Amino acid sequence: MKTTHKPVFAALRRDRQNLFAIALLAAVAFTTPIACAADPLSSWNDGKAKQSIIEFVEKVTKEGSPDFVPPNERIATFDNDGTLWCEKPMPIQLFFALDRVKELAPQHPEWKDKEPFASLLKGDVKAAMAGGEHALLEIVMATHTGMTVGEFEKMVQDWIATAKHPTTKQPFTKMVYQPMVELLAYLRANGFKTFIVSGGGIEFMRPWTEGVYGIPPEQVVGSSGKTKYEMRDGKPVLVKLAEVNFIDDKEGKPVGINQHIGRKPILSAGNVFSGGDIAMLTYCQSHPGATLQLMVNHDDAAREFAYAEPNNASLKAAATNGWNVVSMKNDWKEIFAFEE
Amino acid sequence: MKTTHKPVFAALRRDRQNLFAIALLAAVAFTTPIACAADPLSSWNDGKAKQSIIEFVEKVTKEGSPDFVPPNERIATFDNDGTLWCEKPMPIQLFFALDRVKELAPQHPEWKDKEPFASLLKGDVKAAMAGGEHALLEIVMATHTGMTVGEFEKMVQDWIATAKHPTTKQPFTKMVYQPMVELLAYLRANGFKTFIVSGGGIEFMRPWTEGVYGIPPEQVVGSSGKTKYEMRDGKPVLVKLAEVNFIDDKEGKPVGINQHIGRKPILSAGNVFSGGDIAMLTYCQSHPGATLQLMVNHDDAAREFAYAEPNNASLKAAATNGWNVVSMKNDWKEIFAFEE
Repeated sequence: MKTTHKPVFAALRRDRQNLFAIALLAAVAFTTPIACAADPLSSWNDGKAKQSIIEFVEKVTKEGSPDFVPPNERIATFDNDGTLWCEKPMPIQLFFALDRVKELAPQHPEWKDKEPFASLLKGDVKAAMAGGEHALLEIVMATHTGMTVGEFEKMVQDWIATAKHPTTKQPFTKMVYQPMVELLAYLRANGFKTFIVSGGGIEFMRPWTEGVYGIPPEQVVGSSGKTKYEMRDGKPVLVKLAEVNFIDDKEGKPVGINQHIGRKPILSAGNVFSGGDIAMLTYCQSHPGATLQLMVNHDDAAREFAYAEPNNASLKAAATNGWNVVSMKNDWKEIFAFEE
Repeated sequence: MKTTHKPVFAALRRDRQNLFAIALLAAVAFTTPIACAADPLSSWNDGKAKQSIIEFVEKVTKEGSPDFVPPNERIATFDNDGTLWCEKPMPIQLFFALDRVKELAPQHPEWKDKEPFASLLKGDVKAAMAGGEHALLEIVMATHTGMTVGEFEKMVQDWIATAKHPTTKQPFTKMVYQPMVELLAYLRANGFKTFIVSGGGIEFMRPWTEGVYGIPPEQVVGSSGKTKYEMRDGKPVLVKLAEVNFIDDKEGKPVGINQHIGRKPILSAGNVFSGGDIAMLTYCQSHPGATLQLMVNHDDAAREFAYAEPNNASLKAAATNGWNVVSMKNDWKEIFAFEE
C-alpha cells in the first residue's frame, strides 16, 4: 500500500495550534492505506463479477455494517489448478511427474513394458492416462515418494525454476492468472487470510506459492502422502511413503478445510473442469452471514483454453446457488501478466 | 502491548517548531510498542531460561544480524497439555470425556458392565485407564464421534464455559500458565506465528485457543478423527466418524508440523511428562540457523504439581542436545494469573 505525506504537510500549514490533532492525523496518515490508490483489481473488466467482489469486501470489512466480519474470521479459500493457474493441456504437476519418470527411467528398465510408464516414455500421455485414477496414482507414487520431504522440496524448486509451458513457452510460475493474483492481494489488504485448497499435492505447491501468490506454506491445503519420521545420520528426516494420506478433492475439500483451517471460509473460488470445487463452494455458502462464491469458467480459447464439463455440474450448481460465474473472456481484461 | 501518550505530549511542549518531527514521533508512538514498556515476560524470574528467550528473539529479529530470520519463517510450535496449561490430575480433555460419558450413560445401559465405562461411571478413573491406550481410544470414540463438527464445537464451548478444575476450583481456561501466555504474546509482537502442536484433540482445542492463547484455529495442530462430508436437510455438514485420522504425539508431531505448517519451527516448547515432545524439539533444532528449544519441568509441588518421567527421557534429551529446561519452581515468578 502506498502512502503519501502530503496531507500531513497541508495540515501542518493550516493549523499550528492544535498540535495534538496534527499528531493524531499524522499517525493515521502514516499507517493506513490512502483511499484514492489505484484500482487493486485493474485486470478485471467492470461487470457483475468485479462488482460483486468489491461490494462483498466492502460490506464485510465495514465496522458497524450488519455484514461485518472480524478480521480473524475473514478466511478465503482458492482452488489452484484452473483457478489460480493454468491446468491445460494438463495439470502442471503432471508435467513435473513426467519429467521425473524420464529422469528415473534408467533405474527402472521394467517401465519399458509396464503401463502407464511405457506409454509415458513414448510421449503418449493420453494412452498412459487411459488407466484413469489408478494410472495417475501409480505415476505419483513412483515419482513423489521414497525421498525425504526436504529432498522432494529441492526437486520441485529446481524443476519449477526452469520448466516451461509447452504452448506459451513461459515458466509455469508465469502461467498464473493476473486477475486472481490481484484478488488475493486485494483480499489480504482487507484483512483476509488467503488459503489454497487444491486437489494437487501439498508438497508440490508449497515450495513456490509464497513467492508466486503470497500464500505461505501453512496456508496451503492439498492432497498428500503419508510421511514417517526417522533419524538418518543423527538428523531427523521425514520420509515420503508410497501411501496415500489424504485426497483433497470434491467432498474431500471441506474435510481438508476443516482439518487445516478449522473454520468455514466466507469466500471460496473454484473453476469449471471436473466439479471438484462444488462441495467447497457449497460449504462456504453454508457459513452463517455474508459469503461469496466464484466459479471461474474457461471460455476464452483465444487467450487461454476453452473447456467445459460433460455434465455441466459446476455451472448448474452456480446457477442453482447464485454463485458468481467468472467468465475469463468477459470478466478478465488481462489473463497472464506476461502478455502486458 | 501497552502504549502511553505521555512522550508525545512532552515532545509537543518542548518543540513547537519542528512539527514534522513531532508528527513523525506521534506516528511511531501510536503504532509501535514503546521500547521502555513494561517487561513483556514479567512472570518470568531473571535467569538462564528468560535470558535465552530474549537473546534468541533479539538475534533472529535484528536485521543484518547473522541469525536474522524473516518474519514469514518465524514459526514457533508449542505443546499444549503441561506446556501451556495444566495436565494434572489428568489431561483436561479427559475431564470433558468423563462428563460426556455421564451425560450419555442413560442411552448406554450396557456401559454399567463394560469397561472402561463401568469404572468411569463409578468414578474410578484409574481402574478405567488400566486398559491403557485402548481404553482411552474407546472413551474418545464413544464421546467425540457420531455428531457433526459444528455440534461437537458447541459441546466443547458449553462445557469449557462452566467446567472447573477439581483442586483449584478455577475454570479450566484459567489453568493456563501465565509465563507461557506472555511468551506467546511476546513472540507474536516480534513477528512470530505461534502454533499449538498437541497430542490432544484438534477439535477439542480450537473452540477456545484463540480467546485463551491468541492462537486461531488454523494454527492448532492436534490428534483427530476422520470426518465425512454429507448433506443434511439441504445443508452441508461434516460428520465425525469413529475412525482415527491422525495421532499427533511423539514421532507424529514432526509429521503433523509438516502436514499443517510445511516448514520447520525455529522455536519449540514442550514438557516433561511422557517424552511426547522430544521428536518435535529434535526436529526444530535441525532447522538450519538459530533455533531455541524449551522443555518445561514440573518441579513445583507447592504451586502446581511435581512429576517426572520414569525413564527421564525428556530431561536426558534436553541435557544431550542443549535444550533449555524451564523450571516452574525457579523460572516462573507466577504460574497462574488467578493467583495475583
